[in-house]
Amino acid sequence: MSKKEKQIGLTTKKEDNLTKWYTELIQKAQLTDYTEVSGCMVFRPDCYAMWEIIQKETDKKFKKIGIKNAYFPLFIPEKLLAKEETHVEGFTPEVAWVTHAGDSKLTEKLAVRPTSETIMYDSYSKWIRSWRDLPLKLNQWNNVVRWEFKHPIALMRTREFLWNEGHTVYATKKEADKERNQILDIYEEILKNYMALYGIKGKKTEKEKFAGAEATYSFEFFLPNGKGVQGPDFHNDGQNFAKAFDIQFLDKNEKKQYPYQNTFAITTRMLGVMIIMHGDDKGLVLPPAIAPTQIAIVPIFNEKNKDKILKEANKIKKALKQFRVKLDDREEYSPGWKFNEWELKGVPLRIEIGPKDIEKKQVVLARRDTNKKEFVKLTKVSESAKKTLKDIHQNLYENSKKNLLNSLTKVKSMQELKKAVKNKKLALAPFCNDPECEDWIKEKTGGTSSRCIE
Amino acid sequence: MSKKEKQIGLTTKKEDNLTKWYTELIQKAQLTDYTEVSGCMVFRPDCYAMWEIIQKETDKKFKKIGIKNAYFPLFIPEKLLAKEETHVEGFTPEVAWVTHAGDSKLTEKLAVRPTSETIMYDSYSKWIRSWRDLPLKLNQWNNVVRWEFKHPIALMRTREFLWNEGHTVYATKKEADKERNQILDIYEEILKNYMALYGIKGKKTEKEKFAGAEATYSFEFFLPNGKGVQGPDFHNDGQNFAKAFDIQFLDKNEKKQYPYQNTFAITTRMLGVMIIMHGDDKGLVLPPAIAPTQIAIVPIFNEKNKDKILKEANKIKKALKQFRVKLDDREEYSPGWKFNEWELKGVPLRIEIGPKDIEKKQVVLARRDTNKKEFVKLTKVSESAKKTLKDIHQNLYENSKKNLLNSLTKVKSMQELKKAVKNKKLALAPFCNDPECEDWIKEKTGGTSSRCIE
Repeated sequence: MSKKEKQIGLTTKKEDNLTKWYTELIQKAQLTDYTEVSGCMVFRPDCYAMWEIIQKETDKKFKKIGIKNAYFPLFIPEKLLAKEETHVEGFTPEVAWVTHAGDSKLTEKLAVRPTSETIMYDSYSKWIRSWRDLPLKLNQWNNVVRWEFKHPIALMRTREFLWNEGHTVYATKKEADKERNQILDIYEEILKNYMALYGIKGKKTEKEKFAGAEATYSFEFFLPNGKGVQGPDFHNDGQNFAKAFDIQFLDKNEKKQYPYQNTFAITTRMLGVMIIMHGDDKGLVLPPAIAPTQIAIVPIFNEKNKDKILKEANKIKKALKQFRVKLDDREEYSPGWKFNEWELKGVPLRIEIGPKDIEKKQVVLARRDTNKKEFVKLTKVSESAKKTLKDIHQNLYENSKKNLLNSLTKVKSMQELKKAVKNKKLALAPFCNDPECEDWIKEKTGGTSSRCIE
Repeated sequence: MSKKEKQIGLTTKKEDNLTKWYTELIQKAQLTDYTEVSGCMVFRPDCYAMWEIIQKETDKKFKKIGIKNAYFPLFIPEKLLAKEETHVEGFTPEVAWVTHAGDSKLTEKLAVRPTSETIMYDSYSKWIRSWRDLPLKLNQWNNVVRWEFKHPIALMRTREFLWNEGHTVYATKKEADKERNQILDIYEEILKNYMALYGIKGKKTEKEKFAGAEATYSFEFFLPNGKGVQGPDFHNDGQNFAKAFDIQFLDKNEKKQYPYQNTFAITTRMLGVMIIMHGDDKGLVLPPAIAPTQIAIVPIFNEKNKDKILKEANKIKKALKQFRVKLDDREEYSPGWKFNEWELKGVPLRIEIGPKDIEKKQVVLARRDTNKKEFVKLTKVSESAKKTLKDIHQNLYENSKKNLLNSLTKVKSMQELKKAVKNKKLALAPFCNDPECEDWIKEKTGGTSSRCIE
């Protein structure tokens, strides 16, 4: 091992302290980094590349169903934010306020968008006049700020994050309702096919629904430390915002009507959930569809056989050009150190090739998820890699589903619920959906929150 | 003409009042809209779709030369912004400041990023340790805020805009310099191949270079009202920021060195320049490569022949599926009204099909740029459309080049320069590059600014 090499592995086990393990992991795997602004993180290239994949694939599906992208201002005047009462109550405590520009004090302070309902719907009220202007289906990919006062955790709880915010308007409730499954299906496909994640799809309780919505639907996840996390969500806003922002249209009978609105979002927090769900004590375990590097080729060579082995490794790289491949030909690190690094970075598949392998016209495929190694004929590398990556994805998804369903416990009494919470389980309990009752349960169980109604 | 129809054309001529014409145009063509926040505009779907094309194509070219995307926080603490003296002087007068979160006053006020050098290079100083960490080539696609106190003009001068900001670090000046042509070539291709724009490529004067840079290169454009506008730019920052932010690396001889940095950007302002350059008194004239709708099919039908004609129109749409096509089958508008609307929106090619055309197995192709109409056999529609779109692009680009070069006047004395400025010409004058001298010229000519040194 060269002098340049230093310890890169994790010092905390996932089982021992999830938060510490996670924080160490995303830092060492170079996904995010702290900055001088407390609670605001850098998305480093490997992390942002994963977000780009989520963005690109979700966007493609949105466009296929007629949703168009737009961009609305970052700043929202205080009076606009205050137009829908429940909404403003939900967001004001976390708003970052711009009060000055240069040396001048602004006449009205401006909110840095925590979400864009208010600034968008003010425009919608100007644009929507007739049934011909409907449906209006817009989306934004942008940054939002919610000033969390709790301890920040990269990706999971930060003061600025990235997301999509879809904001659609329909003439009738029926059409608005129909969109719900379209959007939830899109999110489900992204979760399943790119992040290898299974979530419980359901409706939020009255207490936990979005500020200003009539109903909220979401995918819910359950972390190994017994905490629930909300994934992508969809809100039926009914006519709440339409009334607050005076969005009205003339229907085909020339009668004025309030339309029905929906909003929906997926955020960079999902990257955090994915990392926690699949990661292990060696580092990240990334699903192949989202991994910035899908295959790492590590040639095993010395001064003498270097040229010969690198030549073969390059041939393999070429044969794998349909994948995102890195050939690690660095000379200053040993193969063992490289194995550790690619494992830390969660690269799904590693290909090892040394002098003996070349003699036998084979390579070694090493799976990140199961640690299993397999010899494969040189002529079959591409084919085997494809199959193995598919298997890895399937295995990660099945594990995610199994873990969630194994955590789920049916309870029938407060005693059973308390026991489930104590055992860090996700409990399925009968519930009346009364916010007061939910407060009572929360109090009795020491802070348990409801996730969703199945 | 139906009762529903109203006047959608422009009321101002481009030649009479460029600003008024432009402001009316982008509003009526539904590209942008005002909001409650003065100086901040909405990018409506057709406008944002054009930005997405610029972004996608530029990004592809960046990635091909090894630039990776990342995302850094929106907020920059005051002390960080102040680290490079010239830089902070250039930006502070226009900074929007966040001073409060919820009800709490922040201990240090935060700048909403006007540009990200300071927040990025603080991270760079942590990440860069050795020659192995170089080059570091990162880019961001994001929103920035510069609080303009002048009258805002949509896309051209707004308080928030969208851009790319590339920030690269090289071990040697030679490598850093080499990147200049790579990046300027990419921008030139985007300007030429997507926006059909010709700009003068050159170096900015000492007075006009970027705050904190050693040298700035840019593409310069010249509006019909005699005003110059800067397009995409590239800055050689030398070691200025490296020294201010203590970015150092150990070279191969284990010696500490300051690296060399570059930055570069293209902004949404270019959409404004493009619209002004190509537009006419009927509305937008969009280059086919960037037009959200490339071809509009307008069928001419009545109650009786409607089905037959729409059937044929749909066949044409299918034959043109390689293009971004809209079939305008609305019944509440007359063909003439539709022609005006698609002209206002700048759709490069219109296809008209009526009963007589069907008899003769032909359609009419109407070019937006030249207003010329041409009959084309039904069997040749796709082939002709492809050729015509290519011709339109070429024609717009040639016009853009001709207009710029025709405005250029060589001058040798202050008297000739004054005359050129009076005649709204772009003057090519000998110049010593002394900022004091530039101030003197500015004063003598009533505010003329230098664009670039060729």
